[in-house]
Amino acid sequence: MEKLYIIKIGGNIIDNENALNKFLSDYASLSSKKILIHGGGKVATDISAGLGIEAKMVDGRRITDAETLKIVTMVYGGLINKNIVASLQSKNCNAIGLTGADANIIKSTKRPVKNGIDYGFVGDVEKVNEEILTSLIKSGLYPIIAPLSHDGNGNMLNVNADTMASVTSVALSKLFEVHLIYCFELKGVLENFEDKNSVISEITQSNYSTLKEKGVISKGMIPKLDNSFDAINLGVTSVRICHADDLVSIINKEEPLGTVLKK
Amino acid sequence: MEKLYIIKIGGNIIDNENALNKFLSDYASLSSKKILIHGGGKVATDISAGLGIEAKMVDGRRITDAETLKIVTMVYGGLINKNIVASLQSKNCNAIGLTGADANIIKSTKRPVKNGIDYGFVGDVEKVNEEILTSLIKSGLYPIIAPLSHDGNGNMLNVNADTMASVTSVALSKLFEVHLIYCFELKGVLENFEDKNSVISEITQSNYSTLKEKGVISKGMIPKLDNSFDAINLGVTSVRICHADDLVSIINKEEPLGTVLKK
Repeated sequence: MEKLYIIKIGGNIIDNENALNKFLSDYASLSSKKILIHGGGKVATDISAGLGIEAKMVDGRRITDAETLKIVTMVYGGLINKNIVASLQSKNCNAIGLTGADANIIKSTKRPVKNGIDYGFVGDVEKVNEEILTSLIKSGLYPIIAPLSHDGNGNMLNVNADTMASVTSVALSKLFEVHLIYCFELKGVLENFEDKNSVISEITQSNYSTLKEKGVISKGMIPKLDNSFDAINLGVTSVRICHADDLVSIINKEEPLGTVLKK
Repeated sequence: MEKLYIIKIGGNIIDNENALNKFLSDYASLSSKKILIHGGGKVATDISAGLGIEAKMVDGRRITDAETLKIVTMVYGGLINKNIVASLQSKNCNAIGLTGADANIIKSTKRPVKNGIDYGFVGDVEKVNEEILTSLIKSGLYPIIAPLSHDGNGNMLNVNADTMASVTSVALSKLFEVHLIYCFELKGVLENFEDKNSVISEITQSNYSTLKEKGVISKGMIPKLDNSFDAINLGVTSVRICHADDLVSIINKEEPLGTVLKK
């Protein structure tokens, strides 16, 4: 099967103009088939604040009320997505910006109230339409996906970008050899958060439990790793967590940078 | 050649939730190949005001400074475009939302300063990529285009939606029999603006000059009509200006509603 890289870029890179520009140049230079999934960053929070809308968070996840849904639809689906697309176009990468609603590529269900927490307009992915994504990729386009979906009843829904990357990778692994890469501002999963070079080069499913018990893996990293192991168990060939600056070395030179996850 | 309807929907319909919903139901029900191009509406102005950014207008056209460009990219490319797409998806229309930057479908040049007026980040369309649009249409997708383009150097640009509809129609008339329909909140071009039923059923290029001289055609309508006659002269089969409510009757029942423009 042909290789497909699904690359997720985090909010910290998006918030930093220079880091984003460097990342997009690197991304554009990759000759493989690829999909980019981007996070949100701080812009949505800043714009909400400017409009007097308070951001609500529970366990590091945004609570999406109707006003916040408008903001994220604007900022993720409009501002961030289109600026990434325009930048990639200037770097000779024929990018096409999409949300899950576009061409119905990713349909979701509004998350039910759980343990008394109503996340609001947040979606849990129900179905990835891998045929349409594949047909776009095969026609020479490079999908850039915002962390937004729809419920099939006319509502947009906010989706966690890590989860979106993971479920999209699983769906496309029916048709491609999928390599999922999470790019962020650190060199990988760290053994000691104070030492930015203490990268754990490999995490297996069995030592993952130990690392969690010992408290080595921090709270924010757990959903990302849970998603990753789910993806591996469901057919994704490899999952890597690395610094955005290392993307080209990893893909083009096959350097084993960052943290690789294994069964 | 196969028929293709290019339908432009104005801001007044977009601003009215019920009118928009009715229009989208009608649009979804059309079985022909079709492209929807939407305007902006008042939301961008409201959000700008909320953020303390003043909207600047010259001759009824928005001056797009850097802050306004961010707002229109968010509102047109994100909020309005994605809500239309999600709504159409719920009505069984496989819509895909695009700006000119996406898949490089419409590339523009930043408008040069003219007569001392700097329009800012406003684009004049340079090239419509009719092949990619056609390939999307032929794969069963229905493009929904926001009035935004890019300059190929990484910048988004604000584009007049009427002009965008007109140039897109011209480009696609190489491959389709294109019918361009401008839908708005009036029944057509009016003989007497006070009488909303005084629709001029047909305007030819020769009586257009007379109507302009007599002042029958109002200022705001002139760019729309100029664009329309340009489109007809460059290969578009027909141009019609009508009420959004009349779209289905015009296309499915071939009722001669609204104002038709002829050579």
